[in-house]
Amino acid sequence: MKALVLCSGGVDSTTCLAKAVEKYGADEVLALSVGYGQKHSRELTAARAVAEYYGVTLRSLDLSSLFEGSDCSLLKGADEEIPKESYAEQLKKTDGKPVSTYVPFRNGLFLASAASIALSHGCEVIYYGAHSDDAAGNAYPDCSSEFNEAINRAVYLGSGGQLSVTAPFIGMNKAQVVAEGLKLKVPYQLTWSCYEGKDKPCGLCGTCRDRAAAFLANGMVDPLLQED
Amino acid sequence: MKALVLCSGGVDSTTCLAKAVEKYGADEVLALSVGYGQKHSRELTAARAVAEYYGVTLRSLDLSSLFEGSDCSLLKGADEEIPKESYAEQLKKTDGKPVSTYVPFRNGLFLASAASIALSHGCEVIYYGAHSDDAAGNAYPDCSSEFNEAINRAVYLGSGGQLSVTAPFIGMNKAQVVAEGLKLKVPYQLTWSCYEGKDKPCGLCGTCRDRAAAFLANGMVDPLLQED
Repeated sequence: MKALVLCSGGVDSTTCLAKAVEKYGADEVLALSVGYGQKHSRELTAARAVAEYYGVTLRSLDLSSLFEGSDCSLLKGADEEIPKESYAEQLKKTDGKPVSTYVPFRNGLFLASAASIALSHGCEVIYYGAHSDDAAGNAYPDCSSEFNEAINRAVYLGSGGQLSVTAPFIGMNKAQVVAEGLKLKVPYQLTWSCYEGKDKPCGLCGTCRDRAAAFLANGMVDPLLQED
Repeated sequence: MKALVLCSGGVDSTTCLAKAVEKYGADEVLALSVGYGQKHSRELTAARAVAEYYGVTLRSLDLSSLFEGSDCSLLKGADEEIPKESYAEQLKKTDGKPVSTYVPFRNGLFLASAASIALSHGCEVIYYGAHSDDAAGNAYPDCSSEFNEAINRAVYLGSGGQLSVTAPFIGMNKAQVVAEGLKLKVPYQLTWSCYEGKDKPCGLCGTCRDRAAAFLANGMVDPLLQED
């Protein structure tokens, strides 16, 4: 294997997977999806569908035990509801801290896990789908370009120069990620972003709002919101 | 909780724990031990004994599934034997790569796991016992000061400035770590370092050699090697 791609089943990571498959070929790409105790498994189902579409091997991890005790609103057992507001509105109330759907150091943990697995499979690079919209205002600090540089350096040095981390969309916003994916004919109808696990996206949570806006900026309606 | 300490049950991390307890008090320190599929569980037993001695809460994680497929000689199912040579001798044959007992990105994975857990418990700092002897010659690249700086930066940035990483012995060799621990009256008789899981240390593996030499440099015999 050459590349390991973190796959959440959402728009960003699926577009990442498309880029890795274009560059290395499906046989050289290992997809990794991670359960972390999220309230629903809709996104893990989407990750499987996407991996199947691209014909890549998918490995699934369950790291939910690491988040026992967290009050993140995305997690099972959390008292807090998932906010029905845009990230900008949420950030007005967090006093500079991450939003309530920030899972503690999730990207760091997933990338470190990916590094251990990638090294065992001879991969030379890890792809993940961080972009600038998620990092804005410190909503998700583990999506920032500064974090990306630091974790890439940690992975490179800590692996003895055998492995690096690539975030191909780190300088893009989500609309630009979708534009890139549309060129690559990404099957967005298979993906899932909504923090709720219902049949249709709720349309109100932060990620639903961002996703719909990203498709609209590309002159189209999100395939998940199109009438049957 | 204020501090999370990575505890392997060995000399370095136990000395680390002593430092954290001295600074924060036992009630404010959370110890974390991690199973990763090692050939024996002797060190996890030692970690429990040490945590009990200091009266700190110990959390145990099992991350062995992440190393399935690795050929690291420390792991169950590995074909390769644990080398019975010093690290210096081993490094003559690795062509600049880590030694065969390097577990892929282990410190990175453990620190990232520690970060997720620490944030859920309100800790502001993670301690771990990396020192210069382990990093020498790229034997364990995830023990180097450059790696430490990078992972600390990743944890700090990725947590939105809520958490940092401290490696109090990063500029010391193992003899200096033991000197520090002797001042703190660390119960080294409870610790375990040998890569084999027998009743007594084998005395021949890389870590046995380093440990014995570190005690000798302090004018004493390793308590585990003393005659009953």
